[in-house]
Amino acid sequence: MTNSKFEYVKSFEQPDFLLPNTWIVVRVDGRGFTKLCAKYGFEKPNDKRALDLMNAAARVVVTELPDITVAYGVSDEYSFVFHKSCTLFERRASKIVSTVVSTFTANYVHLWSTFFTDTPLSPPLPSFDGRAVCYPAVMNLRDYMSWRQVDSQIYFPFVFRHWLTFQGHINNLYNTTFWTLIKLGGLDNREAEKLLAASPLPPLTSTQGTFKINYNNEPEMYKKGSVVFRDYELVEPGTHNAAEAADAMAEPEQQSKTQAEKDKKKRSKARVVIEHLDIIKDDFWDRRPWLLSNKPGKTPKEP
Amino acid sequence: MTNSKFEYVKSFEQPDFLLPNTWIVVRVDGRGFTKLCAKYGFEKPNDKRALDLMNAAARVVVTELPDITVAYGVSDEYSFVFHKSCTLFERRASKIVSTVVSTFTANYVHLWSTFFTDTPLSPPLPSFDGRAVCYPAVMNLRDYMSWRQVDSQIYFPFVFRHWLTFQGHINNLYNTTFWTLIKLGGLDNREAEKLLAASPLPPLTSTQGTFKINYNNEPEMYKKGSVVFRDYELVEPGTHNAAEAADAMAEPEQQSKTQAEKDKKKRSKARVVIEHLDIIKDDFWDRRPWLLSNKPGKTPKEP
Amino acid sequence: MTNSKFEYVKSFEQPDFLLPNTWIVVRVDGRGFTKLCAKYGFEKPNDKRALDLMNAAARVVVTELPDITVAYGVSDEYSFVFHKSCTLFERRASKIVSTVVSTFTANYVHLWSTFFTDTPLSPPLPSFDGRAVCYPAVMNLRDYMSWRQVDSQIYFPFVFRHWLTFQGHINNLYNTTFWTLIKLGGLDNREAEKLLAASPLPPLTSTQGTFKINYNNEPEMYKKGSVVFRDYELVEPGTHNAAEAADAMAEPEQQSKTQAEKDKKKRSKARVVIEHLDIIKDDFWDRRPWLLSNKPGKTPKEP
Amino acid sequence: MTNSKFEYVKSFEQPDFLLPNTWIVVRVDGRGFTKLCAKYGFEKPNDKRALDLMNAAARVVVTELPDITVAYGVSDEYSFVFHKSCTLFERRASKIVSTVVSTFTANYVHLWSTFFTDTPLSPPLPSFDGRAVCYPAVMNLRDYMSWRQVDSQIYFPFVFRHWLTFQGHINNLYNTTFWTLIKLGGLDNREAEKLLAASPLPPLTSTQGTFKINYNNEPEMYKKGSVVFRDYELVEPGTHNAAEAADAMAEPEQQSKTQAEKDKKKRSKARVVIEHLDIIKDDFWDRRPWLLSNKPGKTPKEP
Repeated sequence: MTNSKFEYVKSFEQPDFLLPNTWIVVRVDGRGFTKLCAKYGFEKPNDKRALDLMNAAARVVVTELPDITVAYGVSDEYSFVFHKSCTLFERRASKIVSTVVSTFTANYVHLWSTFFTDTPLSPPLPSFDGRAVCYPAVMNLRDYMSWRQVDSQIYFPFVFRHWLTFQGHINNLYNTTFWTLIKLGGLDNREAEKLLAASPLPPLTSTQGTFKINYNNEPEMYKKGSVVFRDYELVEPGTHNAAEAADAMAEPEQQSKTQAEKDKKKRSKARVVIEHLDIIKDDFWDRRPWLLSNKPGKTPKEP
Repeated sequence: MTNSKFEYVKSFEQPDFLLPNTWIVVRVDGRGFTKLCAKYGFEKPNDKRALDLMNAAARVVVTELPDITVAYGVSDEYSFVFHKSCTLFERRASKIVSTVVSTFTANYVHLWSTFFTDTPLSPPLPSFDGRAVCYPAVMNLRDYMSWRQVDSQIYFPFVFRHWLTFQGHINNLYNTTFWTLIKLGGLDNREAEKLLAASPLPPLTSTQGTFKINYNNEPEMYKKGSVVFRDYELVEPGTHNAAEAADAMAEPEQQSKTQAEKDKKKRSKARVVIEHLDIIKDDFWDRRPWLLSNKPGKTPKEP
Repeated sequence: MTNSKFEYVKSFEQPDFLLPNTWIVVRVDGRGFTKLCAKYGFEKPNDKRALDLMNAAARVVVTELPDITVAYGVSDEYSFVFHKSCTLFERRASKIVSTVVSTFTANYVHLWSTFFTDTPLSPPLPSFDGRAVCYPAVMNLRDYMSWRQVDSQIYFPFVFRHWLTFQGHINNLYNTTFWTLIKLGGLDNREAEKLLAASPLPPLTSTQGTFKINYNNEPEMYKKGSVVFRDYELVEPGTHNAAEAADAMAEPEQQSKTQAEKDKKKRSKARVVIEHLDIIKDDFWDRRPWLLSNKPGKTPKEP
Repeated sequence: MTNSKFEYVKSFEQPDFLLPNTWIVVRVDGRGFTKLCAKYGFEKPNDKRALDLMNAAARVVVTELPDITVAYGVSDEYSFVFHKSCTLFERRASKIVSTVVSTFTANYVHLWSTFFTDTPLSPPLPSFDGRAVCYPAVMNLRDYMSWRQVDSQIYFPFVFRHWLTFQGHINNLYNTTFWTLIKLGGLDNREAEKLLAASPLPPLTSTQGTFKINYNNEPEMYKKGSVVFRDYELVEPGTHNAAEAADAMAEPEQQSKTQAEKDKKKRSKARVVIEHLDIIKDDFWDRRPWLLSNKPGKTPKEP
């Protein structure tokens, strides 16, 4: 099967194993979504169909790759978290990233017509790029997730921040934010000006306060983004510490084969849900210890 | 725009720049195509629709990414060659790989129904993984391309080698080849046995000789795979040496802006063709110097 | 200061930042020490001068690079542990590795004549290579350290395992171990044979038991290797958990400048000691929490 | 020999193979030489002993590592060029860099007393860091070498630019250059001011013109730096093209064993010389084709 004199070229491939025992986050980003928003007339500032499509594609990715414990999406981006014990593809970065990006893209394109019933896709098609980043400690991982959620809230209520850019406000965050504060935040010129004069941006809570009236009427999806994960029964916080246990973990769990099989089966049966929750506070993680431990929880009772 | 205390997580992203002044090859491979072939009933040993779909998707990738000078596909894989002077995405591996994989996947899924008119896609959808490899010298690049083409010919006439694997011949190349030699090569048992006894495999030309009668009736696409590139007027070999010139090139060409604009325009107007040619011999490269020089040739006269 | 047309070559340098928030271990290994042992007539199986020289060189490295919290040496190798919060040289691997190797080598060569008073160095001089490895969790780091100490004990009592190799026993661990068990372990042929028949090697404790009579007379340095660290007052185990605290740490500590200055001063005043202790059991780490926390302890009272 | 439960930590070591078929340049830089110059009273602006010591250490490195074809040094730095076909240590970056740095350091420290007969070394000892960079084309490699030589000339006549820094001129290149132009260039205040007003620095030739009177009396070593290589008989330029041949080379030469042995022997017999030549112009490379081809030339007749 060897083909002699050309085969040496294989040696030019550089290994790209991701450091063992670290959390792998693959973030997928829409390419050129500014134009895409304009082309397909996404609603401003939030297009429910576009977000639902992102979520539907992400749900397939999480379902097909059981090493992913949780995913978080906002606007045209989605972050997929592989458990630190994951050994998929020997942790080769290019295999992991390309597989996630390809699976996401395939489903985004395939499901398009389900969400955009009147607007068929035409070339150039939507596409996504991706990258993998490793996080050693649970706190680093959670800070990453918080970073994405805070980022989405600062830019709130732009689901597709690209849409704004497209409107000719390129490189002018001040103007676009100003305009949004007025149109959507219900502020007048002076209030908006004052708010923006503060640098850095005021804490989110106060921002949210300012927006109270309108903001509360916005759907949770626009305010919080979307979290995708396998659903088990919630636990009482405080009865354990999944973060500490995960941090102390030294190597891929040596389970008995029977246990591994059981876990696998339970995982494949679990419902993959899409929710819109605060993932910055402890509560989200404390009540769902399986996200960090990778041990399936109890199957929830039928609603 | 900074969001303070979480933003430090950005520093965990590792740079992955590909070495400047080297040829970048991104190879895309079908994931689990063994099952896919079975699921959609791909014809054996070659399915014209499946290959045409691969080629159509590859053509879009080459068209949308002008830094790609040539691509070569066979079976469920496609290799895309970025010119050594390419600076796309600052040559970041994950951006380049994921963009190619995503664009390829999007078009594969979108164009599916054009080629498989009676067989709609259903989950799990086809997907692809990818990797990038750098080659410093033209000869390394050409040896890579030759490797892929030889590889395809050794396995010939399996368009989808996976199909065979699926038939229960896993890890048994001998058997599958034996069977093919008889069914498609027109050999009898003894001849097939004798041919396979030689190790390593006999030179391709002699293999081709053995197959002469049937082999000549096979379409070129099955025998040679597919090359995708921008089409300009062929030149007389010998009047220049594109390989030497490319090897001697030290950095991304410093063209005048006008010239760069002209080249870009010419490139975007060029027809991207799919052909089935020998890419191992010099002739293919000598007559198409633009593949190595990245300087557009003359627009060919209309046929 | 720019020098124009050549400066582009700087862009070929690839970044090699080590993942933040992980323990960096730089291991230094003697190059060709088999020959060196023979050339300078190192005593067999342990040469006190050679080990003392290694330790002296390592002590300088730890003293000059305060980011190193602990080092462990055995035979012709030394491992230096940089705290996970270390930002020296922006964590560039080549800078860190080469600095450690160079400092170690300089002192090894310079101090040679102090330990080998009658045997001057002559070319080719002793030299060392090095590499850096990152460990995300405290348990990974401790397992690394245990690995080196166990490794040294399995080979015990070869200080310079190379010496044995040199004696013509290349690739014949069985023979060399057999011989050592007899000569140094006080076993007879049958006992040695029986011991070696067990595979993998019997637990260290029982091995030590077998050797009890002779082994106990061996200096600790030969049995345990050498640990180098800053010395503060030992603490009662159980009053804290430095490992858990270190694992939970998310980023380089944001200390007040005053505190950082104080710590630095304390660190620079601390005595760097060389001891021969068990570093596999918890006790070593529990009683010296500063090794994992990087917070200087109390200055010990003068003896 | 396995030691079970700790051995998994080996898997954390990341491979760091340098891309095959590229030139590897390892640059070694003095650490903190500003202080060192002051401490040992290096003569200003050029200390012959210090440069001779650098050269002597570099000569040993080139002699002991036959994969190095040429080295270039100036001030407190030295660049070592490994031939693109080199397979030393499987091209692992950390092994190659640390070996060069360690060998260089060992010899620097050991030879110190030969050159500084009255000034014994004392802690902290001189040390060096290092890094490896790959260059795909001969022109990239030559541009790198030219970059180092030009760099040295722009700063001329500072052998140890650090010395100047130390004199309190930190971050004030203008002042230090100004001072040097007057003291060493023989210019008066106005002329120096005028020269420095030009930005970027004037071409070297004109600078050299300006300095003509004094500059010509400076030893070549101060003006050109030092090149270290194996010496064979010079050839007539134009009879061949080593650069083109090297660029076209696709893989480590498959020589007959006999030829490889012969080459090795010839290489080990060759005299390693230190010269002070212009390495920017073609002439240096054209007359010494073995530097790029790695094929030993004719042994020169005894002078």
